[in-house]
Amino acid sequence: MDTSEFSIRTDLAVEANEWVARQIGGAIPGIHTEIIDDDGIKVTKIDVQTEEGAMAIGKQIGHYITMEALGLRQKDSNLQDRLATRLAKEFNSFLKHLNIPVAAKVLIIGLGNFHVTPDSLGPLVVENVLVTRHYFELMPDQVSEGYREVSAIAPGVLGTTGIESSEIVQGIVEKSKPDLVIAIDALASRSLQRVNTTIQIADTGIHPGSGIGNKRKGLTHEILGVPVIAIGVPTVVYASTIVNSSIDLMVAHFQKETNKSDQILGMLNHLDENERLMLVKEVLTPLGHDLLVTPKEIDQFIEDVANIIASGLNAALHEAVDSDNVAAYTH
Amino acid sequence: MDTSEFSIRTDLAVEANEWVARQIGGAIPGIHTEIIDDDGIKVTKIDVQTEEGAMAIGKQIGHYITMEALGLRQKDSNLQDRLATRLAKEFNSFLKHLNIPVAAKVLIIGLGNFHVTPDSLGPLVVENVLVTRHYFELMPDQVSEGYREVSAIAPGVLGTTGIESSEIVQGIVEKSKPDLVIAIDALASRSLQRVNTTIQIADTGIHPGSGIGNKRKGLTHEILGVPVIAIGVPTVVYASTIVNSSIDLMVAHFQKETNKSDQILGMLNHLDENERLMLVKEVLTPLGHDLLVTPKEIDQFIEDVANIIASGLNAALHEAVDSDNVAAYTH
Amino acid sequence: MDTSEFSIRTDLAVEANEWVARQIGGAIPGIHTEIIDDDGIKVTKIDVQTEEGAMAIGKQIGHYITMEALGLRQKDSNLQDRLATRLAKEFNSFLKHLNIPVAAKVLIIGLGNFHVTPDSLGPLVVENVLVTRHYFELMPDQVSEGYREVSAIAPGVLGTTGIESSEIVQGIVEKSKPDLVIAIDALASRSLQRVNTTIQIADTGIHPGSGIGNKRKGLTHEILGVPVIAIGVPTVVYASTIVNSSIDLMVAHFQKETNKSDQILGMLNHLDENERLMLVKEVLTPLGHDLLVTPKEIDQFIEDVANIIASGLNAALHEAVDSDNVAAYTH
Amino acid sequence: MDTSEFSIRTDLAVEANEWVARQIGGAIPGIHTEIIDDDGIKVTKIDVQTEEGAMAIGKQIGHYITMEALGLRQKDSNLQDRLATRLAKEFNSFLKHLNIPVAAKVLIIGLGNFHVTPDSLGPLVVENVLVTRHYFELMPDQVSEGYREVSAIAPGVLGTTGIESSEIVQGIVEKSKPDLVIAIDALASRSLQRVNTTIQIADTGIHPGSGIGNKRKGLTHEILGVPVIAIGVPTVVYASTIVNSSIDLMVAHFQKETNKSDQILGMLNHLDENERLMLVKEVLTPLGHDLLVTPKEIDQFIEDVANIIASGLNAALHEAVDSDNVAAYTH
Repeated sequence: MDTSEFSIRTDLAVEANEWVARQIGGAIPGIHTEIIDDDGIKVTKIDVQTEEGAMAIGKQIGHYITMEALGLRQKDSNLQDRLATRLAKEFNSFLKHLNIPVAAKVLIIGLGNFHVTPDSLGPLVVENVLVTRHYFELMPDQVSEGYREVSAIAPGVLGTTGIESSEIVQGIVEKSKPDLVIAIDALASRSLQRVNTTIQIADTGIHPGSGIGNKRKGLTHEILGVPVIAIGVPTVVYASTIVNSSIDLMVAHFQKETNKSDQILGMLNHLDENERLMLVKEVLTPLGHDLLVTPKEIDQFIEDVANIIASGLNAALHEAVDSDNVAAYTH
Repeated sequence: MDTSEFSIRTDLAVEANEWVARQIGGAIPGIHTEIIDDDGIKVTKIDVQTEEGAMAIGKQIGHYITMEALGLRQKDSNLQDRLATRLAKEFNSFLKHLNIPVAAKVLIIGLGNFHVTPDSLGPLVVENVLVTRHYFELMPDQVSEGYREVSAIAPGVLGTTGIESSEIVQGIVEKSKPDLVIAIDALASRSLQRVNTTIQIADTGIHPGSGIGNKRKGLTHEILGVPVIAIGVPTVVYASTIVNSSIDLMVAHFQKETNKSDQILGMLNHLDENERLMLVKEVLTPLGHDLLVTPKEIDQFIEDVANIIASGLNAALHEAVDSDNVAAYTH
Repeated sequence: MDTSEFSIRTDLAVEANEWVARQIGGAIPGIHTEIIDDDGIKVTKIDVQTEEGAMAIGKQIGHYITMEALGLRQKDSNLQDRLATRLAKEFNSFLKHLNIPVAAKVLIIGLGNFHVTPDSLGPLVVENVLVTRHYFELMPDQVSEGYREVSAIAPGVLGTTGIESSEIVQGIVEKSKPDLVIAIDALASRSLQRVNTTIQIADTGIHPGSGIGNKRKGLTHEILGVPVIAIGVPTVVYASTIVNSSIDLMVAHFQKETNKSDQILGMLNHLDENERLMLVKEVLTPLGHDLLVTPKEIDQFIEDVANIIASGLNAALHEAVDSDNVAAYTH
Repeated sequence: MDTSEFSIRTDLAVEANEWVARQIGGAIPGIHTEIIDDDGIKVTKIDVQTEEGAMAIGKQIGHYITMEALGLRQKDSNLQDRLATRLAKEFNSFLKHLNIPVAAKVLIIGLGNFHVTPDSLGPLVVENVLVTRHYFELMPDQVSEGYREVSAIAPGVLGTTGIESSEIVQGIVEKSKPDLVIAIDALASRSLQRVNTTIQIADTGIHPGSGIGNKRKGLTHEILGVPVIAIGVPTVVYASTIVNSSIDLMVAHFQKETNKSDQILGMLNHLDENERLMLVKEVLTPLGHDLLVTPKEIDQFIEDVANIIASGLNAALHEAVDSDNVAAYTH
């Protein structure tokens, strides 16, 4: 069984895990999962502990936290604030887990293309985070208590700079010497439902092939020499994935309701998901139908989720930022 | 058989016609169709001649011209220029057909929301058309030969103004007294392929329920008192439509290639398209999956197609604009 | 003495009044002035009571309230909130003074060009005000207590629509039938200091020649048939006005400090301000130096002040909006 | 006499040179000047040849070319094309003069803040230049003849990244190893007339204190290890400089026309320009009047001039770009 990341086309560990667990009909060896329900916010913690687990779901060994809040679509500003606060809390537990000291210097990298709305998450977060490094450099005596040294940059994308983001970031890391890199990126998921409603934090960095742009070299501890925490939000889905997920839902629907799914869905009912996806892609691709798509309301969604991430990071990184009122510090 | 516009969810006459013709297995009484292939631009002219034809495809009696150029996705600037030129030509034939005189005053209405990228087509076209009415009003003696009186406005959407676009336009028409209204709008189609690659011109105006926003009262000859030509481009598709069209493609694929479509697709193979769509929607809707989606590259696509329309209109409306070099007059 | 509006080139009653009072060396007959200092916000109320007063300062008979808060330049968010609250209060006193009932329907007009930053104030305010008219029209039973019927539109500028804003607004007023129009516009002042730090409210409407764009026909009670309250913020200054105001400051400086202003400034010291402005313009104009200019930081300034106005209006117009926390309701 | 750059507050060598030459009443030792008039485009070449010359005008030793085209304000698209072509030609002569080979790899740096319109020149140029480095890296065999390896990045500003642009660029240069850096920046001038009508090319790089933002460390051959050509356009002027330049114009005016300038202007007539500027600043600064200002139409101006620079650079850097039709390659 081919369970490579490509075949399921998701950057979310929670989706890869769910999908493979369903294929094998149970828990995956080497992967530990924990789910917390926090009044409209579903938090899933996945620890990929062994190479075997990593191979199985096509994700690196490491810790993944996913926060899902379907209610974000309804512009619920209370839920937005709660999600930002939750993000701050989970992010802090990551910092502790990685033994990042309170005084550690942080560089935030906003990957993606500012001018392609569904790929503009990273640059939008960079615009909204509290940047302080220059105060520490230029007037260290005057920086208030409770602030950490933070810098932030959006390095652009290969197609518009001609240089791999990874190389640009390496150069900046060597000059500005942060102790930790946080990389923000837009992702692809396999479910329209999760687009713009889900935030993933991972301590594995950004690996080649992930994200919706071209980041062939990755941003990892090995490459940059400092730990890299990745924060991602799915903003696009392949059309073929929508079709496949829908057939999947139909199979589940008819199995549950009619026991006639064979009759209704024919062989589609028996193909494993990967085979079916191949079939769907075989049909769609030659016709130019297999595009990456995003919801019509992407402009508003991406602005909202960028604000949530910026607010959460400001509260997590600076003790002086009141974590009960995280939104007050962003634009 | 329910063939209402809603059930097939397309604003394109060419799709409604194609779909119904397939259902009934032949030409539709009361509808005349003509297809021209112009080196990468497919022009389809549909005349809905009778109430029977109108009922059958869920479109008003009138003339519809659709220009499809799949190559637009490849940023082929030569094709863009040719499409603008073709649009100018087809638009002129519309003007002649409607007996609109050369000196007729034109008001261009850009429907949609500037801040929602897939709905920003109308406002973007308005920004790029050549506006001349104020010269005719303020210094009529100094206007060069070959220009027509043109005004243009983007009236916003109900959700942000609180007023129906139709009411706003009525008010402006009464004050500015144009002889013809051209309404530009973003549409929904049933095929991802047609999104941002297709332009429809129709002499039927804008009717309630068409377009991707809320335009409940319509912009028609009856309401405004002057002829209304609508120009639309599909920029979004319902997720359920993508799924349904894909199953449709799979049915066609397996019928052609294997003769085993029954075996592979089960009952899906036998449902008519409308029944299948109901099924797909029944499964997707409760799960919040049935969103309107748009391609990831929408920002660039919509800018390109808005320029094509503005260029085509400038050439069609002003004799002084060189129709061999239409692009030189837009921004 | 020519004291026409043109010669002093300001849209602010407070500047026209100050300037003329200085010329004549005392209070102006027919004009009543009151100044309140509210901890960093200077509120000046000017009542132009007679035609004589109106002629003297080149402003219409009516009430003018100016709020100046120089601290706005320092991005003081506390001051921003206080100014919005003050605006709400002053605006409410205007409504009472004009006998506008609580249930009166309001149409907000955002004059100016969204794509010319210093002229984008009106469109930016329109984007941020709470619009409710469609709820009253479509589901009147479900509108909560404490909300008023509000609609809002940015009609564009003559150069891009080809139609006078005044005509467009007349058409919309006739169709949507508001009881009150509020017109927001960017203004010119004679002092760089007041640019983006000053808000003027006037019950006189918008008159030809005021504002920084071309609004030749005005928006007034006479033209629209309903009362018009104008809210304006100076965003630009003529270069020649900067020069003239500076010489003015130098004259004042040397008269105070050295008693040698004659010696230092020569005849400049003795020219009245109007003569000197003519002199400055005579020198600058042929050289193309007499442009309208705006501060380098205009993008941020205009966004901030648009938010203040939208917040203040939301609190003033809807009782349900908490006037102690006005900012929470804007974007 | 203090002739430091600060005192005259211009980033243009042509203004510094003109000003000092006037002060001393003749040519400046160590500086060679040549003026060419090209039908509406005035080209001034200034060679600062000695330390003495450099000290005198407060500019580095090196070559400066200034192209002034006052007609740009009138949106003359023919003049825009001619200026782009002229820029390409002058830039090429710079490359030859510096012995930069045809195959040299180029990195274009767009300094400034994308979100502050008058400071967005650099980022706008970066968006519009032809970037090719990734093709050379990823598929070197398929790159057509006549193209050079070009990359481009907008590193942001200290206030939003927390890192000096100079450090960021150093890091990127070390990783991407260009043979030449071209730095684009918005400048301050002393004349409103020159704002957005003037382009300066210099082989001296960017020095601390120049430009309108905070670039304290500079981008120079010494710092980056490769030659740096700077391209700048004045987009702002200090209010005090406008006043001072105007008094200067008045002095010239009255000396020429009336021989009564003493009488009219008093001591202002006798102060040297620097003393007078001090006086003006002494008066304006405490009152918060000494802002950097930009013309009201800055949005359009800066877009136009960014396109001219991008077009000119594309033609200068790639032989395959037709230098007779430079504009066709930009957006």
